[in-house]
Amino acid sequence: MRVLGLMSGTSADGIDVALVRVTGRGRNLRTRLERFCTFPYPAAVRSAVLRVANANRQPIVSVAEISQLHFLLGELYAEAVQRACRRFRVPLKRIDLIGCHGQTVYHQPRPELFAGRRIASTLQLGEAQVLAQRTGIPVVANFRPRDLAAGGQGAPLVPFVDYLLYRHPRRGRVALNIGGIANVTVIPAGARPEQVIAFDTGPGNMLIDAVVEAVTRGRQKFDRHGRLAASGRPNKGAVKSMLNHWFFRRPPPKSCGREQFGASFASWFLMGRRDRKAVDRIRTVTEYTIGSIVYAFKRFILPHSRIDEVIVSGGGARNDFLMRRLQEELPGLRFLPAGKLGVDEKAKEAFAFAVLAYQTWHGEPGNLPSATGARRAVALGTIVPGRR
Amino acid sequence: MRVLGLMSGTSADGIDVALVRVTGRGRNLRTRLERFCTFPYPAAVRSAVLRVANANRQPIVSVAEISQLHFLLGELYAEAVQRACRRFRVPLKRIDLIGCHGQTVYHQPRPELFAGRRIASTLQLGEAQVLAQRTGIPVVANFRPRDLAAGGQGAPLVPFVDYLLYRHPRRGRVALNIGGIANVTVIPAGARPEQVIAFDTGPGNMLIDAVVEAVTRGRQKFDRHGRLAASGRPNKGAVKSMLNHWFFRRPPPKSCGREQFGASFASWFLMGRRDRKAVDRIRTVTEYTIGSIVYAFKRFILPHSRIDEVIVSGGGARNDFLMRRLQEELPGLRFLPAGKLGVDEKAKEAFAFAVLAYQTWHGEPGNLPSATGARRAVALGTIVPGRR
Repeated sequence: MRVLGLMSGTSADGIDVALVRVTGRGRNLRTRLERFCTFPYPAAVRSAVLRVANANRQPIVSVAEISQLHFLLGELYAEAVQRACRRFRVPLKRIDLIGCHGQTVYHQPRPELFAGRRIASTLQLGEAQVLAQRTGIPVVANFRPRDLAAGGQGAPLVPFVDYLLYRHPRRGRVALNIGGIANVTVIPAGARPEQVIAFDTGPGNMLIDAVVEAVTRGRQKFDRHGRLAASGRPNKGAVKSMLNHWFFRRPPPKSCGREQFGASFASWFLMGRRDRKAVDRIRTVTEYTIGSIVYAFKRFILPHSRIDEVIVSGGGARNDFLMRRLQEELPGLRFLPAGKLGVDEKAKEAFAFAVLAYQTWHGEPGNLPSATGARRAVALGTIVPGRR
Repeated sequence: MRVLGLMSGTSADGIDVALVRVTGRGRNLRTRLERFCTFPYPAAVRSAVLRVANANRQPIVSVAEISQLHFLLGELYAEAVQRACRRFRVPLKRIDLIGCHGQTVYHQPRPELFAGRRIASTLQLGEAQVLAQRTGIPVVANFRPRDLAAGGQGAPLVPFVDYLLYRHPRRGRVALNIGGIANVTVIPAGARPEQVIAFDTGPGNMLIDAVVEAVTRGRQKFDRHGRLAASGRPNKGAVKSMLNHWFFRRPPPKSCGREQFGASFASWFLMGRRDRKAVDRIRTVTEYTIGSIVYAFKRFILPHSRIDEVIVSGGGARNDFLMRRLQEELPGLRFLPAGKLGVDEKAKEAFAFAVLAYQTWHGEPGNLPSATGARRAVALGTIVPGRR
């Protein structure tokens, strides 16, 4: 089957489109990313999305706005499919299925009191029936609610696809993604889906970037290839004491974000260290990030599974200093960039929702209960018929 | 197949559940309503629904509220299914499919400008994935967006089911529903789906009820069996002049509502006629209602199709005076109450969404383009898998 995956991230930049070839079922499932492209949202759409997404708690939107944005995004997804097919030189009628994540405007897996009940919920916009009607192609959409209904967090869903991409009969592998936050999917050799675990290890590039931007007064946004960190000296005492953060000791599954390692953590870190050189501070925060990843491996991964390879994706994979130090700290593991084995990082989520759509289309589950916390594996989302 | 249909009307009273047996396909489709019941919303839920539905234009809700209401209604639909099955003494696992209309909180088929585009949209709440997960039964939900995407009004959808119930190889039939507004589905003898037309004829009980309530100062809410009208004398000149209303002359398909024949029309009518007796005014407005229905038959139905029977449903079917006068004015037609041939009026919509779910499940269309204005017949809604 040729499947298109559509993804719009929370940054509301636009629509990612991945063309994926998928064959087989279950253990024989095979996937290949054939093409990828991105279409930015028009400015008016981006501001409408951000307006609605920022209306989380404040009563500042009308139901008309939400309903209209839902249908407008359906139209934009349809146009993205048509434009992508022209660019890929694949006729629409050669596409068998679309997987459309939609635009998340609310996600609260922790139950909250509403009309006398405790309710967890998630809301993705983009009317899949508009997309199916315009393209004539069946659509699987709205992947997160089913996992939530099964008691999960509705996220992360990508580890299932890591499992499909990286599982190996004799090699234990960890998919390590170093984005703003760093997360791992642990896939022991010959693992069944329920043996896979996934969790956030702590900060990824988030703290390093914040410190670089602050100490260079905005001239640099990140530490290219880790050169600044490499030229500084770490404050080992500070690294050690910051590694006492409660988050690291919590057993997985667990997730973190800006609440824990965002701007306020960075300010606190910088405040206490005015005396030291700029590059020393960058080195210290880089060592802290490395330390948190290494801790996760030593405490939660290596004692339980034999791991041979670590497949690294995300911006952190391009920080040579960080990669070299990880390899030094974990000498028994082989660190590989993701492009070698799998899917380019920027195409990963769109790719993932193409694969998850294929699973649902065949009545197969798409969540990993060990990653989301769901009580069971379930087929995710909802199916809109194409046109006969 | 045993199919449950779930309906929540715009009055936000609660959840109607119909148990329907459906067999066959296409021209051989057979349906039977087996059971019906209603579960009122808890007060807190009703007020949350009305709050959101009333936030149409005003920016007074948060996205959190809408998302939480969406999931809460999913839970309530699941509980309604479980309670209905206990009451009907049918085990859950004997139900093959659920059709869930959801709770409409926005419906605007006329395109409006949004973020630089003209967008028509409709929004029904009640997360079907929660319903499918709790019950284990596959669900078809969210019926209106596909018709809208195909250029229709997303409504009315019941005429398709009228067609299934009442089509006859040799008898021309009209399904006349006299609710607040009166509407007809015209089914010529041996008609194919595309030959069916459906439209609103004008006021049903809406004006009569408003006038009765006003002239009795609220002591009576409606004219039981039409006794008040029968004892009054009509102002024929007023009836004739009011029948010049632009709506009646507009060719079908067309729809009307409170905007045309609601409180302000009733006030205007009452204002000009203070001199006459109360029962005369009730008779006049009843004759006006009759006149508008008769006009629709003589102008838009009888010149085009041979009609033998009129199957009457809705509160108006219990207004004996109105029924007798319709029979007098249209002597060539046989007027029959709906219960004789079809489905009890109060179960009609829940029944309809069970049947439409069955159609979608089999990849069959569920809209009548001649009724909704859609460019083509399409399978409606979205399918959520059950639990394996």
